[in-house]
Amino acid sequence: MEAHAISAPPPHRPPAVLQAGQRVIDRCDALGTAPYSDSGDGLFRAWLTPAHRAAQQAIAGWMEEAGMAVRMDAASNLVGRYEGSRPDAPALLIGSHIDSVRDAGRYDGPLGVMLGIECVAALHRATRRLPFAIEVIAFGDEEGSRFPASMFTSRALAGTLDAATLDGVVDGDGIPVAAALAAWGLDAALIGAAARDPAAVIGYLEAHIEQGPVLEAEGLPLGIVTGIAAQLRFNVSVDGRAGHAGTCPMPLRHDALAAAAACVLAVEAAAREAGGDLVATVGRMQVLPGATNVIPGRVEFSLDVRAGRDDLRDAGAGEILRRFRRIAGERGVEIAAEPVQDLGASPCDPALTKLLEQAVAAQGIAPRRLLSGAGHDAMVMTALCPTAMLFVRCEGGISHNPAEHVEAEDASVAVAAMLGFVERLGTTMTAGTETSIVGAGG
Amino acid sequence: MEAHAISAPPPHRPPAVLQAGQRVIDRCDALGTAPYSDSGDGLFRAWLTPAHRAAQQAIAGWMEEAGMAVRMDAASNLVGRYEGSRPDAPALLIGSHIDSVRDAGRYDGPLGVMLGIECVAALHRATRRLPFAIEVIAFGDEEGSRFPASMFTSRALAGTLDAATLDGVVDGDGIPVAAALAAWGLDAALIGAAARDPAAVIGYLEAHIEQGPVLEAEGLPLGIVTGIAAQLRFNVSVDGRAGHAGTCPMPLRHDALAAAAACVLAVEAAAREAGGDLVATVGRMQVLPGATNVIPGRVEFSLDVRAGRDDLRDAGAGEILRRFRRIAGERGVEIAAEPVQDLGASPCDPALTKLLEQAVAAQGIAPRRLLSGAGHDAMVMTALCPTAMLFVRCEGGISHNPAEHVEAEDASVAVAAMLGFVERLGTTMTAGTETSIVGAGG
Repeated sequence: MEAHAISAPPPHRPPAVLQAGQRVIDRCDALGTAPYSDSGDGLFRAWLTPAHRAAQQAIAGWMEEAGMAVRMDAASNLVGRYEGSRPDAPALLIGSHIDSVRDAGRYDGPLGVMLGIECVAALHRATRRLPFAIEVIAFGDEEGSRFPASMFTSRALAGTLDAATLDGVVDGDGIPVAAALAAWGLDAALIGAAARDPAAVIGYLEAHIEQGPVLEAEGLPLGIVTGIAAQLRFNVSVDGRAGHAGTCPMPLRHDALAAAAACVLAVEAAAREAGGDLVATVGRMQVLPGATNVIPGRVEFSLDVRAGRDDLRDAGAGEILRRFRRIAGERGVEIAAEPVQDLGASPCDPALTKLLEQAVAAQGIAPRRLLSGAGHDAMVMTALCPTAMLFVRCEGGISHNPAEHVEAEDASVAVAAMLGFVERLGTTMTAGTETSIVGAGG
Repeated sequence: MEAHAISAPPPHRPPAVLQAGQRVIDRCDALGTAPYSDSGDGLFRAWLTPAHRAAQQAIAGWMEEAGMAVRMDAASNLVGRYEGSRPDAPALLIGSHIDSVRDAGRYDGPLGVMLGIECVAALHRATRRLPFAIEVIAFGDEEGSRFPASMFTSRALAGTLDAATLDGVVDGDGIPVAAALAAWGLDAALIGAAARDPAAVIGYLEAHIEQGPVLEAEGLPLGIVTGIAAQLRFNVSVDGRAGHAGTCPMPLRHDALAAAAACVLAVEAAAREAGGDLVATVGRMQVLPGATNVIPGRVEFSLDVRAGRDDLRDAGAGEILRRFRRIAGERGVEIAAEPVQDLGASPCDPALTKLLEQAVAAQGIAPRRLLSGAGHDAMVMTALCPTAMLFVRCEGGISHNPAEHVEAEDASVAVAAMLGFVERLGTTMTAGTETSIVGAGG
């Protein structure tokens, strides 16, 4: 437990590790251009596209260079395997996704794959074998930018994707998933063959850019993810009374926008007062009829509430809705909130998370635990095995944007921490506590 | 001045006056249907359309029945003249507009014309002549629903429309004003001939539905308009920082929508605190990028500020902009307000307004003075002569809407008050104070 201390001096980072960080960034940057991007304007790499194929080929080459045997599974995932000290040892999976949103940044997704490759490359250069194999996985479909659903490929690998789920799913051009898979050389009916045997997997580690400003604000290159937030979404409507902006005195108004504005500030205040990791956001708003000289009669807006625990999320949402009711009463308007999404929290495995925290602290970095407010493949992988997630600082918290930026130095520290994690995991297994780790969160 | 007292019992209203009110409503209702409306769905009567022509023909018939000589002027205004006791006496103009917005109510505009006709009809029935003529005018273009400008016909009559102003003005179908006038049988180049000689006009009286909820809230059928409000409009932008709704903790946000919400409430609070007749409205708002899971980075909204006096309006707007600056500082966002419209106040003539107030009080009605927040032809007519305006209660303050409703009883009271006004004006003129009235606000 002493690894929690942050008084240890920053360890010496060998030149090879520094070079590894630079290589991670260079490779992500290279994948940001043609032929690894489909779009003329800005990076866009969707699942089962020529850009996806080109990126797989480049990554397969880098995996081979790092000493891995490379294959593609039945769900199109690219898998590089670095054997452990014993043949056919169970594997630690290190993965992330290589698809992107439109007009994407270069690191959301690929960074985690490149970091995994550099970990293995370092072991390979040192001819170091661990009591387990390491498999680096490049998932194909985390963002859901092509089809109106996401994480098909990690769900297939985790064994939670029923092939029938794909029936009738088409992309924006009307192409069914099955046809896209067939064009790629895969059979949709056999996608379930990508499912891994839980007995052959000891855990899943995912490194990802934070996509938020916390690490930068605290001057930390890395953070340890405790889990993926529980989420509730509502569509909210406010019905007041439309009126002429010039002829209706202030005391006689039932202005739907003024009521909605009070709601927006109530959302903010309730989330701030709750503290902890609760966040609540109004991201969308439509004001009707929407004319300069008309007092708004109706406003519609979205409400998104997230927290690390379902009960805290529910308490936060409950308090917000109570405040909405009070506003409706005070202002003589009607406010209705319709729930439209309810996702429970996906906690990371406590034992793996502890090892990751020790590995980060050993780099002289205060081990900052934080919640992931965004979804990741790791959320899906909890169904297969214990998971851990490492966040890497990104500039300004900016993501899903060409301005997304990660420092090479931070990538180097991430490689070092991930190497520390796999070494610690190896030590733990050698000490015969393997089952306790696997059992803790599987 | 004793007419301010409201203790006088409601006067006896002869059956003829009660019938007049019902006729006003019935005629407005009749004009709400084909062939007096262009649109299949809802009332729509635009300037220089077949519906406008049909409405003019019906109204001309009612004017003639009421004892008026009817003509159409060079700007398409329908004018019915009821001579005074002396031939060629100067005229009191009683007017309103007969064009409408799309999906209009039946009273916004026509009510004032029908009330004017009933006043003259009552005088005619009583073979009563006044020291002045009365002309009832049906303006054609108050709403500006057809061409991207409004009040062409009252501006022409008031002598403030330069024919060159019409050059290049086209409707939604690309038809120039000049072509529309030509198809109607008029020459755009001669529109200036509609201008009236100020020496031949002693004043302008307009009755109009309130288009607001004040009279209904106070249980009053009529109100005396003190003037048309001064107006300032701004386009406001709020620039914060967009971010992921799940990954950016509350304390690190610069949410443009939360800042805009604070602005909306500041607008409301500043206007309420200023009191008096100041009103301030945010009617339009756009939230960008406008996704459920993205903290808004930019919000654009409209700000409309009105008051009876330019200085009060400016003071109100100044206070609102000061509060915006404070919000920007507190929240670390940028707020910019660009002025886009500045219309000065158009006060009604104090002497005519006083006479109208006395006439309303004589009906046993508390003489409620109120500002018109909306624009009217009367605003234009102040350039020609002293003006007065009477507001008639409308149900729920609803206007520009098929649900617009006026009670026949209220129309009866309006006819009685308008008759009282013209009688008082006659008495004043006979007493030799004509010049003081004409001079007061001309």
